[in-house]
Amino acid sequence: MTVEITGFNWVPDFAQGFVRDLRPRWACEEIGLPYTTRLFDAAQPRAESYYDEQPWGQVPVLKDDGVHLFESGAILLHLGEKDERLLPRDRQGRADATAWLFAAYNSVEPLMMELSNIQIFAAGEEWAKLRRPSLLDFAGQRFDRLAAALEDREWLAGRFSVADIAMATVLREAGDTDLVSSRSALAAYLNRALARPAFKRALDAQLADFKDREAVPA
Amino acid sequence: MTVEITGFNWVPDFAQGFVRDLRPRWACEEIGLPYTTRLFDAAQPRAESYYDEQPWGQVPVLKDDGVHLFESGAILLHLGEKDERLLPRDRQGRADATAWLFAAYNSVEPLMMELSNIQIFAAGEEWAKLRRPSLLDFAGQRFDRLAAALEDREWLAGRFSVADIAMATVLREAGDTDLVSSRSALAAYLNRALARPAFKRALDAQLADFKDREAVPA
Repeated sequence: MTVEITGFNWVPDFAQGFVRDLRPRWACEEIGLPYTTRLFDAAQPRAESYYDEQPWGQVPVLKDDGVHLFESGAILLHLGEKDERLLPRDRQGRADATAWLFAAYNSVEPLMMELSNIQIFAAGEEWAKLRRPSLLDFAGQRFDRLAAALEDREWLAGRFSVADIAMATVLREAGDTDLVSSRSALAAYLNRALARPAFKRALDAQLADFKDREAVPA
Repeated sequence: MTVEITGFNWVPDFAQGFVRDLRPRWACEEIGLPYTTRLFDAAQPRAESYYDEQPWGQVPVLKDDGVHLFESGAILLHLGEKDERLLPRDRQGRADATAWLFAAYNSVEPLMMELSNIQIFAAGEEWAKLRRPSLLDFAGQRFDRLAAALEDREWLAGRFSVADIAMATVLREAGDTDLVSSRSALAAYLNRALARPAFKRALDAQLADFKDREAVPA
């Protein structure tokens, strides 16, 4: 059985290694599930038919034995249903993994999205400069609480799960701020996650799919 | 069987009817699942022990027969597992509902959160004024795509599901902008959702739990 994941064969330098197909790739690598890719050039418009698969034209979309779905969080949960190494089977373990998965997507990543807006997409705009302190302050308070939660556990749901794939890839988006590095429990957690061989394989696979843009036929 | 949901007995006027315990309340009302509430005063600090239940000190937390979890998205999914009226049981239906649930939480709500920052929490700040046009423009593009997806279906996953509870409560957060009202498919969808008797019961129940602040012992 093979699943198919959509991704890009070109993105700007700053996005390489950070595109969200990294998350299902990582999950597949954790359980040894083979996957194929369907790749687009991020600089080109997506075919209009792709919006039927993914309403915002983004990646990833997963196809799995006749079922298709979008949103990397939903895809992580779908893959989690396949293997308890990704999603605990006991009731409380499942509840913890699901809660922390949504926490990554709804309580932490929105702050990192706005940080990317400020640092990359709107860099140089006046509002971005003025917004930065309050955003970093709010994110810092939230990261303090996340660090406190991670003081006494190795992984968010006790043992490794899709919640950690989500949270670690979200924390990576803190970029060159000290949001993670200034909190030892968070820094240790992120190092632990990114040291997993499955993460390294997923990252290498995403990077290998980026071709030199000039080499891609127009 | 009864579940317990945490909520508030006081919030500022602008938040009344919009606190996120509305979402699990609505889900419970859809399937006739009785629930009790455990209420806090939003103006008072939460007990430190509550952060073990909810890392950001927010509501809702759900307790259900010995299991506890946080994040309203995870709670909706948990409740969806109880009843197919909330979460389809066929593979593609489940995939669709889960994908759109995450879309509400990760692709639409972050924009509404920043809109709330601009319109409420940072109203009057220079960055908020400068940021508003680009945020509304980006949100508008996303709402166009959401409206297109809703042109040919009554509910996001075909039939009603937890995805609609999430998306409708998120769209309500567009407030007095024309993001929803200027898109007829979106406006009709939101009206359809908010006309459900279960939504009305959930909203009434949340509002009934807000006491006049002066009446609450200090």
